Amino acid sequence: MRATVFNGPRDVRVEEVPDAALREPTDVVVRVTHACICGSDLWPYRGELLIYGEHGRMGHEFMGVVDDVGPEVRTLRKGDRVIAPFAFSDGVCEYCSGGLHTSCVHGGYWGAQNDGGQGEAVRVPWADGTLVKLPESVDLGDARLAAAVATLTDVMCTGQHAAVSAGVGPGGTAVVVGDGAVGLCGVLAAKRQGADRIIVMGRHDDRLAIARRFGATDEVRERGPEGVARVQELTGGGAPHVLECVGTGQSFATAIGACRPGGTVGHVGVPVEPIALGDVHGRNIGLVGGVCPARAYQPELLADVLAGVIDPSPVLDLTVTLDGVPDGYAAMDERRAVKALVTL
Amino acid sequence: MRATVFNGPRDVRVEEVPDAALREPTDVVVRVTHACICGSDLWPYRGELLIYGEHGRMGHEFMGVVDDVGPEVRTLRKGDRVIAPFAFSDGVCEYCSGGLHTSCVHGGYWGAQNDGGQGEAVRVPWADGTLVKLPESVDLGDARLAAAVATLTDVMCTGQHAAVSAGVGPGGTAVVVGDGAVGLCGVLAAKRQGADRIIVMGRHDDRLAIARRFGATDEVRERGPEGVARVQELTGGGAPHVLECVGTGQSFATAIGACRPGGTVGHVGVPVEPIALGDVHGRNIGLVGGVCPARAYQPELLADVLAGVIDPSPVLDLTVTLDGVPDGYAAMDERRAVKALVTL
Repeated sequence: MRATVFNGPRDVRVEEVPDAALREPTDVVVRVTHACICGSDLWPYRGELLIYGEHGRMGHEFMGVVDDVGPEVRTLRKGDRVIAPFAFSDGVCEYCSGGLHTSCVHGGYWGAQNDGGQGEAVRVPWADGTLVKLPESVDLGDARLAAAVATLTDVMCTGQHAAVSAGVGPGGTAVVVGDGAVGLCGVLAAKRQGADRIIVMGRHDDRLAIARRFGATDEVRERGPEGVARVQELTGGGAPHVLECVGTGQSFATAIGACRPGGTVGHVGVPVEPIALGDVHGRNIGLVGGVCPARAYQPELLADVLAGVIDPSPVLDLTVTLDGVPDGYAAMDERRAVKALVTL
Repeated sequence: MRATVFNGPRDVRVEEVPDAALREPTDVVVRVTHACICGSDLWPYRGELLIYGEHGRMGHEFMGVVDDVGPEVRTLRKGDRVIAPFAFSDGVCEYCSGGLHTSCVHGGYWGAQNDGGQGEAVRVPWADGTLVKLPESVDLGDARLAAAVATLTDVMCTGQHAAVSAGVGPGGTAVVVGDGAVGLCGVLAAKRQGADRIIVMGRHDDRLAIARRFGATDEVRERGPEGVARVQELTGGGAPHVLECVGTGQSFATAIGACRPGGTVGHVGVPVEPIALGDVHGRNIGLVGGVCPARAYQPELLADVLAGVIDPSPVLDLTVTLDGVPDGYAAMDERRAVKALVTL
């Protein structure tokens, strides 16, 4: 089969690889129909974070059709349409039961040594625990709906995790640091959680337009200390809930600075640098969050997508074929696209 | 009057300074009867953290007798015995009302440009908000009781803040990183909060003996990765509640490593180095805490001390006079004492 392979910084190729196949009796094989390219993979793409070895398989966001079923799989049949979270998990361990599927005792991530999502098919471990089945009524021929569902493989769940981690609830003020796909989904999630004021920090007109559509009430285009000062001014001392959706040292400092004393930064950006905690200490800012247990959020978010309560599809503003995946990475790297959808 | 002054690393002297005096109508002047030396002041003492200018006044833990009262003070009279938290606060602003007195809009800290606690007297701003009056029945001639009350100026409250920030509640398992005075008070606080297993990480026999007396059920003497591995082994993957009571990069890493996925590190150690958050991100460890709003905890902890429910006095294992303050710092620096009480 064909799949996306990492050959080095800015050298992503679609190559022939061994076919995805059952290995354990609890596996299924999913034929991929839709995948996405994740902003977090721009770090290794740019050579700034080493997570893929030579010829490491890429892509951790995918959905598709069950094509082969292991003998111990109980809930899925060939032909079922499913969405995957960006990590697999058994669904029954202490952590899965507690909603922290990314810490599953049998869990792991797609890509690298496992099949990646940006390929024709994926072996899915612990399929009963990992996958969420789509109702038969869902029409994936509707491209907008398919894109909205595809965001549930990662970014919409991750935005939701940021909002939940930051403690956003009805009536509060939230700041969202970052106008990438996760930041935009964070805006949508904050709105969904009931925030009545949502300040988005970013500087790209097209992305801020999506943020407004998602519920942002204010924009702060300044960065660093100027951005913090502007948020402080808008909120009279900082917001109780801040969503950190980038992961750099500067964005963490901005998120912390924009937070009200005693407030909480919900962080989902992969932290690529050590963070100074002096301000966190002095003002009792909570740092809560981490890698999103997407599987925990998928059922409720899928219900809202299908009911038309939320529509995260605008974050996928570029569609490519499997052969176009390298172009998709380049477009995101060069900020010509917020996020690319791959259709197979 | 005489007070303790910072003249440079390891050069602390008791010198003649201007008398403490009323400046604002909401001030009182407190004649100090008991003060303590704080482990956090060992950082500037050793020259590792610059917080005192030349001739900066030292000491932020004190109790005493009201000696002069400003015309707008409503709740205190000359002769009242009072304990101070290590920060002053108006008691009525948004943050004080919410229990975060260290972020008071009119607040500040003792020492440096303000009077320090290790002196004969202190001007206390916002006296109605800042000070807690002792009941007349309290016999401070009882040296043990006086020491127990003196810990409420900082360390016992700070240990309590670590436990509360870490979410310690009835029946849980808590790890306490550090066997200094704050760590020991953290053990006592975790016990008070109802933890049924308390693992203390430290390596000093005398301090671990106090920890056991305070409720520790297990000791881990290894440090760094070995200490983390030992806690992981004892707890089957980490504890849900970890109290970080040191503040170094290593102690933060240990606290994070000892924490169970999805758990919380309650941190009160002054963070002197940037902290790598990769493990925090990957396992969704919450970092909650900061500088302790001691004023918020003093009433309930004082009630428990007076009722004999808790006795933190053993952390004060050295008593010096005002002239002995430089010796007290040296004793703590050289680990000959956990913490020094100053009697005037």
